[in-house]
Amino acid sequence: MLHTATVLVASVLAVLPSVHAFWPKPTNITEGTSALRLAFDFHISISPDIRDVPQDLYDAVTQTQTYVFTDDLGRLVVGRGAGDVSAFKDAPELSELVLSLTPGAPVLSITQETQKPVGERDEAYTLSIPSNGSPATITAGSTLGLFRGLTTFTQAWYQYESTIYTLTAPIDIKDTPAFPYRGLLIDSARHYFPVSDLLLMIDAMSWTKINEFHWHVVDSQSFGLQVPGFMELSTYGAYGPDMLYTLADVEYIVAYAGARGVDVIVEIDTPGHTAAFADSHSDYVACNQARPWATYAAEPPAGQLRLANYTVANYTARLFSAVADMFPSNIISTGGDEVNLVCYQDDYETQYDLNSTGRTLNGALNDFVMGNQAALIEKGKTPAVWEEMILDFNLTLSNETIVYVWISSDDVAAVADKGYRVVHAASNYFYLDCGAGGWVGDDPNGDSWCDPFKTWQYTYTFDPYANLTSDQYHLIMGGQANIWTEQTDSSNIQSIIWPRAASSAEVFWTGPGGNGTAALPRLHALTFRMIQRGLKAIPLQPYWCAIRAHECDLYW
Amino acid sequence: MLHTATVLVASVLAVLPSVHAFWPKPTNITEGTSALRLAFDFHISISPDIRDVPQDLYDAVTQTQTYVFTDDLGRLVVGRGAGDVSAFKDAPELSELVLSLTPGAPVLSITQETQKPVGERDEAYTLSIPSNGSPATITAGSTLGLFRGLTTFTQAWYQYESTIYTLTAPIDIKDTPAFPYRGLLIDSARHYFPVSDLLLMIDAMSWTKINEFHWHVVDSQSFGLQVPGFMELSTYGAYGPDMLYTLADVEYIVAYAGARGVDVIVEIDTPGHTAAFADSHSDYVACNQARPWATYAAEPPAGQLRLANYTVANYTARLFSAVADMFPSNIISTGGDEVNLVCYQDDYETQYDLNSTGRTLNGALNDFVMGNQAALIEKGKTPAVWEEMILDFNLTLSNETIVYVWISSDDVAAVADKGYRVVHAASNYFYLDCGAGGWVGDDPNGDSWCDPFKTWQYTYTFDPYANLTSDQYHLIMGGQANIWTEQTDSSNIQSIIWPRAASSAEVFWTGPGGNGTAALPRLHALTFRMIQRGLKAIPLQPYWCAIRAHECDLYW
Repeated sequence: MLHTATVLVASVLAVLPSVHAFWPKPTNITEGTSALRLAFDFHISISPDIRDVPQDLYDAVTQTQTYVFTDDLGRLVVGRGAGDVSAFKDAPELSELVLSLTPGAPVLSITQETQKPVGERDEAYTLSIPSNGSPATITAGSTLGLFRGLTTFTQAWYQYESTIYTLTAPIDIKDTPAFPYRGLLIDSARHYFPVSDLLLMIDAMSWTKINEFHWHVVDSQSFGLQVPGFMELSTYGAYGPDMLYTLADVEYIVAYAGARGVDVIVEIDTPGHTAAFADSHSDYVACNQARPWATYAAEPPAGQLRLANYTVANYTARLFSAVADMFPSNIISTGGDEVNLVCYQDDYETQYDLNSTGRTLNGALNDFVMGNQAALIEKGKTPAVWEEMILDFNLTLSNETIVYVWISSDDVAAVADKGYRVVHAASNYFYLDCGAGGWVGDDPNGDSWCDPFKTWQYTYTFDPYANLTSDQYHLIMGGQANIWTEQTDSSNIQSIIWPRAASSAEVFWTGPGGNGTAALPRLHALTFRMIQRGLKAIPLQPYWCAIRAHECDLYW
Repeated sequence: MLHTATVLVASVLAVLPSVHAFWPKPTNITEGTSALRLAFDFHISISPDIRDVPQDLYDAVTQTQTYVFTDDLGRLVVGRGAGDVSAFKDAPELSELVLSLTPGAPVLSITQETQKPVGERDEAYTLSIPSNGSPATITAGSTLGLFRGLTTFTQAWYQYESTIYTLTAPIDIKDTPAFPYRGLLIDSARHYFPVSDLLLMIDAMSWTKINEFHWHVVDSQSFGLQVPGFMELSTYGAYGPDMLYTLADVEYIVAYAGARGVDVIVEIDTPGHTAAFADSHSDYVACNQARPWATYAAEPPAGQLRLANYTVANYTARLFSAVADMFPSNIISTGGDEVNLVCYQDDYETQYDLNSTGRTLNGALNDFVMGNQAALIEKGKTPAVWEEMILDFNLTLSNETIVYVWISSDDVAAVADKGYRVVHAASNYFYLDCGAGGWVGDDPNGDSWCDPFKTWQYTYTFDPYANLTSDQYHLIMGGQANIWTEQTDSSNIQSIIWPRAASSAEVFWTGPGGNGTAALPRLHALTFRMIQRGLKAIPLQPYWCAIRAHECDLYW
C-alpha cells in the first residue's frame, strides 16, 4: 500500500507550480520557464533621460548590485540548486538593468517621495527581465517606484556555486500597492535599542516594501528622545545618557529610512504613558509611580500628564511643535491609549483644575488633545491617535485624523462609522509580542494578555474590509505589525519581528485574500534571503520542510 | 493622597532585602553588609596540596579570572552602582582566592568527575569570602566541586567604572545540589546548529550549574551525526556535508562540555522518528515519507525502523554499540517516543516479519529495545527512554533504565510506580518551544500543541515530588529544560533558551519551593551577566523594572 503513496508523491510534485521568491507578491506577474544567468559584469544603469539623479537613487543602485551578487541564496529544494545546473549552464546572460522614469515625471529623490503624505506617493513600477539576455528594465513614475522595482529585482535570483540565475525568465511584473500604509511599530521605550538595531529593522522593512516606521519612542518607562527646547525630558527621563536618541541619531535614522522608502512616524504618547515626564517635571504628572500600580495604569509605572492644567497642556502642545520640526513625515501620533480615569479622579491637582475651570475630564481631555493636534496642524502635519480617543472619549478631532485600531479588529467598523481613516494594528492579528507569557513579577500563572502567539499564517488571513460597507473602504489606509518591547531588547528584536512582519506587509501590499498555503514557500525564501543578508529571521518550519515545498502542509 | 503612597515607597524599599546575583541560589548562604573590592592584581591560586593539577582545572581558573575582570555587570539599581561609590571607595581589597581539595580527596579532572554516573559525582563546595581582604577560599571534595565554587564566585561581583566590588562581604556558602541531574535538551535534527552555537549553550549551562546536555542529535528530518562504521547514515541522512557533526566535532564538544562540568547524553531516537535512516537504508524504514503524514507520524516526515526485522534490529543494536564508544557519558538514550502503530499495521514487511516469527508488535518492540539496551549495557552504559516505552508498551526494561517523562508531569507517578528512575522533562513545565504557534503549513489557525508559553515563573513553581510517596522520592533524578527546534535555528536558539532554562536549573540545584517573587531580581542579574558574556538572553521585564527590584510585581 505504501507503494501507492510513493507514486502519488511523484505525480503531485510534478504538477506543483514552481516556487518563486518574490515577497510581497507583485500584484501582476507573469513568468516563463527559461533559465537566465546574471553576467559577471552585470550592472545597473540609469537612463540618461533622468537629469540630476538623486544621490539616494545612486545609493540604491549600488546596494542592489551588492545584494544580487552577495545574497547567495541557494534555491529551497533538495540539493539547493545542484539539480539546476543542466538547466542554467548554457543559459543566456543578463548584463544590464536599465532604470527609467516615465516621460515627464518629476525627479524627486526617493526620500522626498517617501515623505509625501500617505496616499500621495507613487510606488508603482514595471519590471521586465527578458529571457534572451537583453537588458532588463524598470520603469516607474517616481524614484520611489524605481526603488520598489529594484527591491523586487533582487528577489529574482538564486545562487549555486559561482552562478547567479533564475529559472523563470522571462519575468514581467507590473506592481503597485493595494494600500498606501504598510507599517511596523517598534517600541523603544520599554527597552532602548541601539541605532544600529533600528537601521537593520529599516533595511528589513525596505526588503518587504513596508513604508511606515511607527516609532513609539517614549513611554512611562523612559523618555529617550532629545527634543530641542525640551532637552530636560531626555536628560532626566531617558534610561541613561547612552540610552537615548540624540538629535543627530534621529536625523540619521530618518534619512536612512527615507532613502529606503520608509517614512518615520514618531509617537509621543499622551496623556497616558507619561510617567517619564515626571523625571524632569514632577508637577506635570498625576499618579506618578502610584501604587498599587494596577489601579492607576495598565503596566508599571503609573503616571499621566495633568491634562487639565493649562501649563501642562501648553507645554505639551509646544513639545509637539518641536517634535514636528524634527520629523519630516506628514503624520505624527499623539497616542492616546489606555488613559486611566482613577489616576485623575485621585489626583488633587487635576480635580482642582477641573473644578476651577468648570470642565469635565472628558472636556479637558478634548481641549488637551485638540491643543496638541492644533500645534501639529499648524506645522502642516496630519495627527494620528489610538482608537480610545475616538471610541471611548468621543473627541471632536480633525476629520483628517488617522486612527490606529489596536484593541481588536472588531473596533474598526465603529471608527469608520465616525468617518475617520483607519490603520489596522489590532492586537488580535498584528501584535508580535503576544504569546510570550506574562512578565509582571509575583504572578507565576500570568499569561500574555493577548494570547495566543500571532502566527504569520493567521495574520495572513486578515480581511482589511471585514464588517465595513463598501463606501467605507476608502477609509482603510492599510495596516502595521507592532512589537511592544516589555520582553524584547537587542537580543531578540530581530527574531521576534522577522519574518512574521512580512505577513502583514504582503496583506497590505498585494492585497488580502492571498492563499497562505501557496505563500509559504515564498516566505521561506524571503526568510532565507534575510538570513543571508545578516538578519536573524527565525525559521518557520524544520529545514527538512523548507527545502520541500508543501510536504509539511497539514493535508499533505 | 499620593503623598501617602510616596512615603510608602520609601519605607518598603528600606526593608527590602538586598539583592544578590547568585543563580542558582546556593543551598546555604550567609552574607554580611561590608563592601569589598577586587584588587587589580587579584589572582586564583591552587593549593600546593593538589598534586598533578588537571589541565581543565587550570583552564577553569583562567576562565574565572577573565569573567570576574570582564563581566562588568553594573548593579541593577537606578544609577547602576553610582550610589555605591561611597560604600566601596575605601573598602578592603581581595587579592587572592585559594582552591583546596579536602584532604585525601582523589585528584580527578573536572571532566572525569563530570562523566561519572549521575548520582556519583561530587559537586559540593564551600566558598568563603572574608570581608577584611584575607584570601577567599573554595574547598571541595573534587575538582568538579571546585569548578562549581568558581562559577559561584564569579557571580559575587558588580562593576562600577573601574571598580569591581561586592557590598555583602563576608560571604559564606556551603553548597550542594538538591538533585544530581539538571539538564537541557537541544534538538539539532529539526535544525542543524553550528558547533559554536552548541559550545555557547554549554557555556551557559555551566554558568547555571546544569550538568547534563541531553543531545537529541538525530530525528526523521536529519541524521547529522557521524558514527564510525555507520558513516552512510550521515552521508546520506544529514542535511548536507557541512550540516553534520563529525567525529572531531563530537570529540571537541564532549571535551568542552566535560571541562565545564557538563556531561553529554546522546539520544538516537528509535524506533520512531527515524525516516532519515531511509536515506541510506530505505529497506530498514516503514512508512517512509508516507502520506498523509498525519496518519503515520506526529510530524512530517513519517518513517519508523522496521523493528520486527532482525537485520534492522541487529543493525540498530550495533549502531548503539558504536555510539556508546563515542560518548563517555554513562547514560545513552534510545528514545522511544511517539511510536506510530498505523505505520506498522500498514507496512507489509513488518506484518510479514511479525507473522513469520509469531510475535505481536509489542513483543517485537520489546525485543528491539531490549536488544539495543543490551548493547549499551555491555558497554557499561545506563539506558534511558522516553516515557511511552514504560507506560504505553509496558516493556520489561532493565531496572536501571532512566525514564524521561515528557507528555505531562501527571505521568511521573505511574513511572515511579513501576520502580524506574525519572527525569522530569514534562511539556507542561519544561518545554521551551511551547507558545510559538503552529508551524505546519496550510493551517492558519494552528496553535502550539503545548500552549501556553512556559514562563520562568511557572516553571519555578514545579514540585518534583508531586503525587509521589516519600519512598519514591529517591527515584527522582532531577529534571531538564527542552528545546525542540522546529521553529528554532541559529537565529533564536540563544533567546529561546535563556534565561528561561535557568529556572529549572535552580529548581533542581537549590531544590523546590523557592519564592519566585524573591528570585526575580537574581534572575535579572543572571540575565544581564549572560548578556555581558555575549549570550543573547532576553529580557524578563522592561529595563525600568529590572533596575527597580519588585516595583513591577503584580501586587506592588
